[in-house]
Amino acid sequence: MPILQPIPERLLLGPGPSNAHPSVLEAMSRPLLGHLDPDFIALLDRVKQGLREVFGTANAMTLPISATGSAGMEAALVNLLEPGDPILVGVNGVFGGRMAEVARRAGARVTTVEATWGTPLDANAMAEAIARVRPRVVSFVHAETSTGVCQPVDEISRAARDADAMVVLDCVTSLSGRPVELDAWGIDGAYSGTQKCLSCPPGLSPVSFSERAIEAVKARKTPVQSWYLDLSLLAGYYEGEKRVYHHTAPITATYGLAAGLDRVLEEGLPKRYSRHTEAAERLLAGVEPLGFEPLVEASYRLPMLNALRLPERVRQLGEGPVRARLLEEFGIEVGAGLGPLAGEIWRVGLMGENARPAVVDRLLEALRKVLA
Amino acid sequence: MPILQPIPERLLLGPGPSNAHPSVLEAMSRPLLGHLDPDFIALLDRVKQGLREVFGTANAMTLPISATGSAGMEAALVNLLEPGDPILVGVNGVFGGRMAEVARRAGARVTTVEATWGTPLDANAMAEAIARVRPRVVSFVHAETSTGVCQPVDEISRAARDADAMVVLDCVTSLSGRPVELDAWGIDGAYSGTQKCLSCPPGLSPVSFSERAIEAVKARKTPVQSWYLDLSLLAGYYEGEKRVYHHTAPITATYGLAAGLDRVLEEGLPKRYSRHTEAAERLLAGVEPLGFEPLVEASYRLPMLNALRLPERVRQLGEGPVRARLLEEFGIEVGAGLGPLAGEIWRVGLMGENARPAVVDRLLEALRKVLA
Repeated sequence: MPILQPIPERLLLGPGPSNAHPSVLEAMSRPLLGHLDPDFIALLDRVKQGLREVFGTANAMTLPISATGSAGMEAALVNLLEPGDPILVGVNGVFGGRMAEVARRAGARVTTVEATWGTPLDANAMAEAIARVRPRVVSFVHAETSTGVCQPVDEISRAARDADAMVVLDCVTSLSGRPVELDAWGIDGAYSGTQKCLSCPPGLSPVSFSERAIEAVKARKTPVQSWYLDLSLLAGYYEGEKRVYHHTAPITATYGLAAGLDRVLEEGLPKRYSRHTEAAERLLAGVEPLGFEPLVEASYRLPMLNALRLPERVRQLGEGPVRARLLEEFGIEVGAGLGPLAGEIWRVGLMGENARPAVVDRLLEALRKVLA
Repeated sequence: MPILQPIPERLLLGPGPSNAHPSVLEAMSRPLLGHLDPDFIALLDRVKQGLREVFGTANAMTLPISATGSAGMEAALVNLLEPGDPILVGVNGVFGGRMAEVARRAGARVTTVEATWGTPLDANAMAEAIARVRPRVVSFVHAETSTGVCQPVDEISRAARDADAMVVLDCVTSLSGRPVELDAWGIDGAYSGTQKCLSCPPGLSPVSFSERAIEAVKARKTPVQSWYLDLSLLAGYYEGEKRVYHHTAPITATYGLAAGLDRVLEEGLPKRYSRHTEAAERLLAGVEPLGFEPLVEASYRLPMLNALRLPERVRQLGEGPVRARLLEEFGIEVGAGLGPLAGEIWRVGLMGENARPAVVDRLLEALRKVLA
């Protein structure tokens, strides 16, 4: 039996990957260029510029890391932290917890400020901890994919900068679905993934680092523990007049990201943000009669990742079996809850190309049938 | 101007990427599945089995790491080494040197045995150093992409195992172009890339770890410094009955690897190895009249990466300008020399799909015109 078998069509309404735009998939079938080919370097430079636009930044060091979003998280933390450095991490879901773990493995002294899953971090609690810990880095998640919470950034970031700490922000799920404004917010290190609102396959992690962050990396006393993610080495390939081989960049994935960014910039960010908001409103209005309730209070709710408390009917049928029926009979994937929210919620992603009324309606119709 | 511009057709005869098989590119344009979709998990399991065949191993822990070959190197070393562990690294080119650097960043005590670039490591010198250093890990490169040297593996591996050391082998350029026999050779950790003889785009790093290596990882006293590359965490997603989310696997790249492995296994490994050998013979016979001379002695020469000393005519015209003409006028990429071999050699890759007489002849014809 061949390894590659026919791939079924799926509507991907989980926490990511979302469905890729057809032009992205077409781009990924184009012939390969070498990673030092002038045409590829020029493409990479345009991709970097497109990423600056969606990140809301002028940061020179804005590029796609050659791995998935979790490696982008690791890149941000291992470059900005040296062994023994204090870091304050806000934890209100899986990905804040992951940040703390990655920082520990980088030898940092980790302090966490926790908030109940489904609620945002308390800016006052973060500010108090910043004053107490005097961290080198403050890190938290903009869009918590495990809970659907959108974290207000400004106040925490200001407190961090007032204490001369660098700020690392997880933008994996927010990028191009909710406003991300790295420069206005004063963010020093940010990372995302391609498989959420950018509607590209997973495989690359867009990252961006401020001048201040780059200076801190240059002033390190110890080498970055990861050779693969060392920003000083990456700069030799991604920046400057003469590009030096570091690793072999994922050519095809870069084509896909280029096409994805073209779709985002053609549409325009404000329109794209509104489209996400409207799709979420349509979803919530449609699932309410079925008994689903949003986990997150309206003012902190993410539009592209809807955490929905399960109604009695789903619990009766079993949430796993219902998700399996949606997948098998209707070709629709929705996401399960993680950690303390496993069995309590579903995570319904309306990301990028999928943030559209027709997509919402297709899910609602399937849900009505499955729960009838 | 759109970010994605028309992609020129290139014949990629450098050190990789090589051209992807059309069926690989077609596979990469297929619709996405979720990373926990039963159809994707089944595909991943078949990919793992295909990788076992090309690696010559029954190792359960054989999988594609979600990043490029250099991350595979990092995965092998950071999992098998703890801070303070002694490692012996054979260095006869860029990639041996990179191994030593990655090991240093993992806190290991690194001893190197060096050999002149273009020659293999001396098995006796390695055995003597193993006896002296008593390393936890012995690592070296099977196919040095920077020099075109094929390293005999057996003798060094035996010396390492006799001293109870684990053996890490870089198979980036050799896999599916030269026999790789991890189990017969007694290798504990191996890594490769998809963009060489497998004729897939860059983006994944096939790796394989022995039972002994997995036991060593389980017995670690310290956590693996990289969360992204931690084999114990990766095992939760890549192995077992119930798969647990770790990171989002690169779905599309996995489709491509599946198609690439199908082409390899359809052809059969022995035939594929012969095809590489024959293509290299044709190349060497064709470039000799033009004054190119192989850098490496015949018995250690790699067929898929031909290091060629430059003739006077190329030096007169300038090796950079000649490569640029090959690229611009003939659409053919060949690789420059690295390190001490910069300006001294070209690296002509005949990898995977490109190890064919017609490809060799196209290069020879272009060379004759450019050097006329």
